[in-house]
Amino acid sequence: MAGSIFGKNFTITTWGESHGKGLGVVIDGCPAGLELSSDDIQAFLDRRKPGQSNITTQRKEDDKVTILSGVFEGKTTGTPISLIVENTNQKSKDYSQIASYYRPGHADFGFDMKYGFRDYRGGGRSSGRETIGRVAAGAIASKILNQLGITLLCYTKSIGGIYIDYDNFDEDYISQNKLYMPDRDAFFKADEYLAKCMEKKDSAGGLIECVIEGMPAGIGEPVFDKLDAQLAKAIFSIGSVKGFEIGDGFDVVSSTGSYNNDEFCIINGEISKKTNHAGGILGGMSDSSPIVFRAAIKPTPSIASKQHTITCDGEEIEISINGRHDPIIVPRAVVVVESMAAITILDLLLENMHARLDSIEDFYMR
Amino acid sequence: MAGSIFGKNFTITTWGESHGKGLGVVIDGCPAGLELSSDDIQAFLDRRKPGQSNITTQRKEDDKVTILSGVFEGKTTGTPISLIVENTNQKSKDYSQIASYYRPGHADFGFDMKYGFRDYRGGGRSSGRETIGRVAAGAIASKILNQLGITLLCYTKSIGGIYIDYDNFDEDYISQNKLYMPDRDAFFKADEYLAKCMEKKDSAGGLIECVIEGMPAGIGEPVFDKLDAQLAKAIFSIGSVKGFEIGDGFDVVSSTGSYNNDEFCIINGEISKKTNHAGGILGGMSDSSPIVFRAAIKPTPSIASKQHTITCDGEEIEISINGRHDPIIVPRAVVVVESMAAITILDLLLENMHARLDSIEDFYMR
Amino acid sequence: MAGSIFGKNFTITTWGESHGKGLGVVIDGCPAGLELSSDDIQAFLDRRKPGQSNITTQRKEDDKVTILSGVFEGKTTGTPISLIVENTNQKSKDYSQIASYYRPGHADFGFDMKYGFRDYRGGGRSSGRETIGRVAAGAIASKILNQLGITLLCYTKSIGGIYIDYDNFDEDYISQNKLYMPDRDAFFKADEYLAKCMEKKDSAGGLIECVIEGMPAGIGEPVFDKLDAQLAKAIFSIGSVKGFEIGDGFDVVSSTGSYNNDEFCIINGEISKKTNHAGGILGGMSDSSPIVFRAAIKPTPSIASKQHTITCDGEEIEISINGRHDPIIVPRAVVVVESMAAITILDLLLENMHARLDSIEDFYMR
Amino acid sequence: MAGSIFGKNFTITTWGESHGKGLGVVIDGCPAGLELSSDDIQAFLDRRKPGQSNITTQRKEDDKVTILSGVFEGKTTGTPISLIVENTNQKSKDYSQIASYYRPGHADFGFDMKYGFRDYRGGGRSSGRETIGRVAAGAIASKILNQLGITLLCYTKSIGGIYIDYDNFDEDYISQNKLYMPDRDAFFKADEYLAKCMEKKDSAGGLIECVIEGMPAGIGEPVFDKLDAQLAKAIFSIGSVKGFEIGDGFDVVSSTGSYNNDEFCIINGEISKKTNHAGGILGGMSDSSPIVFRAAIKPTPSIASKQHTITCDGEEIEISINGRHDPIIVPRAVVVVESMAAITILDLLLENMHARLDSIEDFYMR
Repeated sequence: MAGSIFGKNFTITTWGESHGKGLGVVIDGCPAGLELSSDDIQAFLDRRKPGQSNITTQRKEDDKVTILSGVFEGKTTGTPISLIVENTNQKSKDYSQIASYYRPGHADFGFDMKYGFRDYRGGGRSSGRETIGRVAAGAIASKILNQLGITLLCYTKSIGGIYIDYDNFDEDYISQNKLYMPDRDAFFKADEYLAKCMEKKDSAGGLIECVIEGMPAGIGEPVFDKLDAQLAKAIFSIGSVKGFEIGDGFDVVSSTGSYNNDEFCIINGEISKKTNHAGGILGGMSDSSPIVFRAAIKPTPSIASKQHTITCDGEEIEISINGRHDPIIVPRAVVVVESMAAITILDLLLENMHARLDSIEDFYMR
Repeated sequence: MAGSIFGKNFTITTWGESHGKGLGVVIDGCPAGLELSSDDIQAFLDRRKPGQSNITTQRKEDDKVTILSGVFEGKTTGTPISLIVENTNQKSKDYSQIASYYRPGHADFGFDMKYGFRDYRGGGRSSGRETIGRVAAGAIASKILNQLGITLLCYTKSIGGIYIDYDNFDEDYISQNKLYMPDRDAFFKADEYLAKCMEKKDSAGGLIECVIEGMPAGIGEPVFDKLDAQLAKAIFSIGSVKGFEIGDGFDVVSSTGSYNNDEFCIINGEISKKTNHAGGILGGMSDSSPIVFRAAIKPTPSIASKQHTITCDGEEIEISINGRHDPIIVPRAVVVVESMAAITILDLLLENMHARLDSIEDFYMR
Repeated sequence: MAGSIFGKNFTITTWGESHGKGLGVVIDGCPAGLELSSDDIQAFLDRRKPGQSNITTQRKEDDKVTILSGVFEGKTTGTPISLIVENTNQKSKDYSQIASYYRPGHADFGFDMKYGFRDYRGGGRSSGRETIGRVAAGAIASKILNQLGITLLCYTKSIGGIYIDYDNFDEDYISQNKLYMPDRDAFFKADEYLAKCMEKKDSAGGLIECVIEGMPAGIGEPVFDKLDAQLAKAIFSIGSVKGFEIGDGFDVVSSTGSYNNDEFCIINGEISKKTNHAGGILGGMSDSSPIVFRAAIKPTPSIASKQHTITCDGEEIEISINGRHDPIIVPRAVVVVESMAAITILDLLLENMHARLDSIEDFYMR
Repeated sequence: MAGSIFGKNFTITTWGESHGKGLGVVIDGCPAGLELSSDDIQAFLDRRKPGQSNITTQRKEDDKVTILSGVFEGKTTGTPISLIVENTNQKSKDYSQIASYYRPGHADFGFDMKYGFRDYRGGGRSSGRETIGRVAAGAIASKILNQLGITLLCYTKSIGGIYIDYDNFDEDYISQNKLYMPDRDAFFKADEYLAKCMEKKDSAGGLIECVIEGMPAGIGEPVFDKLDAQLAKAIFSIGSVKGFEIGDGFDVVSSTGSYNNDEFCIINGEISKKTNHAGGILGGMSDSSPIVFRAAIKPTPSIASKQHTITCDGEEIEISINGRHDPIIVPRAVVVVESMAAITILDLLLENMHARLDSIEDFYMR
């Protein structure tokens, strides 16, 4: 497939451009019988909605979702769920200037090389708005996971070198600040840092962390479709991600086996591990410890300060990008990361149902 | 798929266990007309062959490959290429003890939870020997890429906190030392470090770096099948990988847009970039700069020093793992990383051929 | 995938129910640079539009298509094309009665067994309206094929035992009669036959034939993804198809090799075949002769005459189905068959582009 | 994929040529816990083994299968099962003559057009021996289906116009005659007919029928992955198949709705149908009636009588094909049809396990 389809069992196909008529997703393989309303989906979309604070684009979009198919009398029917969000506040004129050159840090050049031309309005398909379909589908995947006792918690771990302190970790605070940080002190420092970035017409990067609890053991397919490999692809498919790690991640490079191995033990009669350096995945399969992963997000490439680049005709020029841009991608990407993780985990949970003959016999011969 | 199939256009299906009759791979979608002999493949396999030095398992395996199909009169025919390496030096007795408990840091527990039981001999399917099929396929993908002017260079960047110095970078030296490091000084320090690890019955982790040159621009599919997303999956599907990053990777989290953006320019009449923080990929597509990525490899989980764990019956015990284990996975993983990168890039190169109608018309109406 | 996705390279995902908000399709993998307007698509949709004659359902639907994404300045961009047709004339009350029982010849029972319940309004997802997305995508596939010199001609070959006579074959006439027959005499007889069917509150079956000209040789993948195998799946995925055959089809069962083999020869300097019993496909690959296949379509299962069936609670009852039904499916299915054939052929044409190394080298090293 | 991979959940990848080192299959997604020995597989392979009578090729091949992976202590482990059959009686010289021309009715021409050259020995990949991998995998799929109470019965329905009489149907007799016919009288007539064919250096076609009992209702995915569509592809992917039909098949074209609809009823407290014109599939899903389908098999294209054709250089010549050929493909294809049907049904059964949320909850929260 040419890359707008993701997942094998819970399969999402996204479509739409920044300045087209709208964006959406078709979900094929959603199990029948899930109670679902547009409110379930809207709650997720509202977390990535623009225009909510001074650090998000001032483009005014309500991003209201409509369910076009696959739900009947309040329940999913097992047929494809088509979701649409219409664009209402496109201002194509903002972007007409960028038709003629390649913005540094953007996909413009690649699109021209690949397809011969591009929809330059607002980045077209490579706009951050492309993630609307992902988040809409993620809301559904999350709802199913929650019903299975699996929960995802996703937040900003650092911005511009300012890290949260786990001693101050306040889960409730995540949704109470525009940076989705779980630490009030870190939030204020980061917010100050961003204000300076904006003054300098510059942008900042950051780190997103995700913790998944309640996973049964054995989810993920050994070899290529490992749970961590699928998560890596899912998260790296989000624009601006430049790094992905699980558990101790890059720290393992200077660790030792005696330290890094998590010893199995019995806690309250349950198989458990004394530590979780592995981040909840061993040999590509969940080990029932919490899954912990992080994604490194680059600074917003659209900045108002001057940059050098070339025109499509190969002429070197100086530009400064105006328009409506976030000085940081991280906060609005938090729900995108959570959504992609939910979709990936659900996909592999479904796959796991036919791993064993006795389960299949139970299913068909009950 | 249940996870032993990788790729859409150049599709590999691997099979085999550590102590079964052999291991292999079937490649579907290899283009016809490639000159191919078993020597081409053997050269790659020899780079991951065990028993070559004091830091690799002493299991003696020649890992001789046989081409079973898909090649006729020295050329690939376009039909599936089946490759097999027979196991000759299985010593199942070495492993009989591990049938009853879960080794820390290994997939044993996951296998039992998923499938109800496991082939415990040498780790079964989750053994490092599983990568034989990947490397055999990687040899073929690399040969094709080379014919298209694309080259991959893969090496050990660090072991146990000892990093190579780019000022001492010696490409030729990579294949001349058992750690596949491009820096003689770093090699000697790392080798000393490993000797101490082994004395302590412990193991070490490290970092692998891969540089790909000669890429045309526009390879990779926007949205889910981004070049970096597919690479992330490919590399994370290798056992023991705990982190993946591209270009500046995790350093972007404290960077700024003005620094991190690579400005486009014209060098010698060619579109180029002044810097390569992006690591050669923008918006999921190659930008014709070198692709640079890194993989963090955890320390070998099999260590001879004492560890606590539990038996399959849930009893807490103390173990020490004997058998034939490498104190570090990194050196033998270098060619595996290179192979998976080659397979991924070829797969997306093929996909790219039908991105544009004019190319399709050229192809069919020439 | 759960079955609403078709194709590997030109991939279509359809969605929508008879009485939901609308129906549509997302096409992933459409090459960039195709001139495309909604008129191109509307022309195809109009061929399956209801309410055009006395033998189609009197439901009034304009079936107006809107292009939501993937087209910019009149050309496809290479990104997903999302197409929607809104439902405007749903009358759910017509169908409320069928919620409680299983209609003979329909999917109702299967839906309940599979999903636990169903959207019973107008057949829900198993309505003939499901094909709207297929036809919309087929219009695009056909336009691309036409630009490559490949044309599809699809028509009604027989209805209720009345067959066309090839001596009277009039291609222009196909679009001039409501039954899409290429033979005026056969049309009048068939129309009379249908009038009698309707009088008897009964329905009729028929045969659709498709002829594809201009195919290059070698399209189709040997073994599982044979051109004929993919066509068989594509056509059989259309509701009401009960048989598919290619070339001489079922007649081969009493034929002999000496008759059935098509001898190769040279005609006007081109490799050709003296006969075309094979229907243009040998060993799963096109042989450059016209591809000829036929699909057997069952009589409309919704009939107004009395039938016995059971309720969802297992009670035996007598019913007669009212509502707005066609007495024959064949004429409106003609464009669906043509669409699915076009999609399938394009998909395999794209696949074929990377069959040979020299082609790949030509493409990347030109 | 380039066409040697089949199935989504129970995925088979076949490889091998007529005159290469061997042929085989890798099965990914076989559930763990199935008792499996090579005898289970050999029993199926023996049904397609050559050299068993005067109407099969005299090439002597034992076709002994070896299990290379995926089975441990007599049970499947859930990892890929690799199966190999070595070629032992290749006589390449028999075929050297056919390198220079295109045999009528064969894939030779297509291979040359697609790949630029071909492995001409014995038809290479398009040889009937290609089905060895399918049958080996089919044996495993059948064993699983049998454990779920699903049975497949496959036999020859007609040869050269001689049809079985259902009044004489003798299931036991199928395996007792070389033509796999369930009717002793029909067998003798067909055998006589074939003797005459052979005298005339000609070949014959025929019809294979398959009946599947014990299917639960609701198997198959609505829309593209209908049970009948997947069966159509599976069966049409077998070389020499020119037609596929289900239930009343092509007879529906002159039928009426009132006759063709199967009325639902209650028999012995179970939902049933009074008739089975549909052949056990409605709306693409099983309806719990027996599934009945038929495949039309063309006469063997390799015949010893004289034929005209062209050389690869475009010269018209006269040939007669010697070598070791069956005068009829049907009998040995019976087990191939059965195998492909078993694989297809198992694949969709596995898919069906996650159709409903309550099933998923039962599975994970039990």
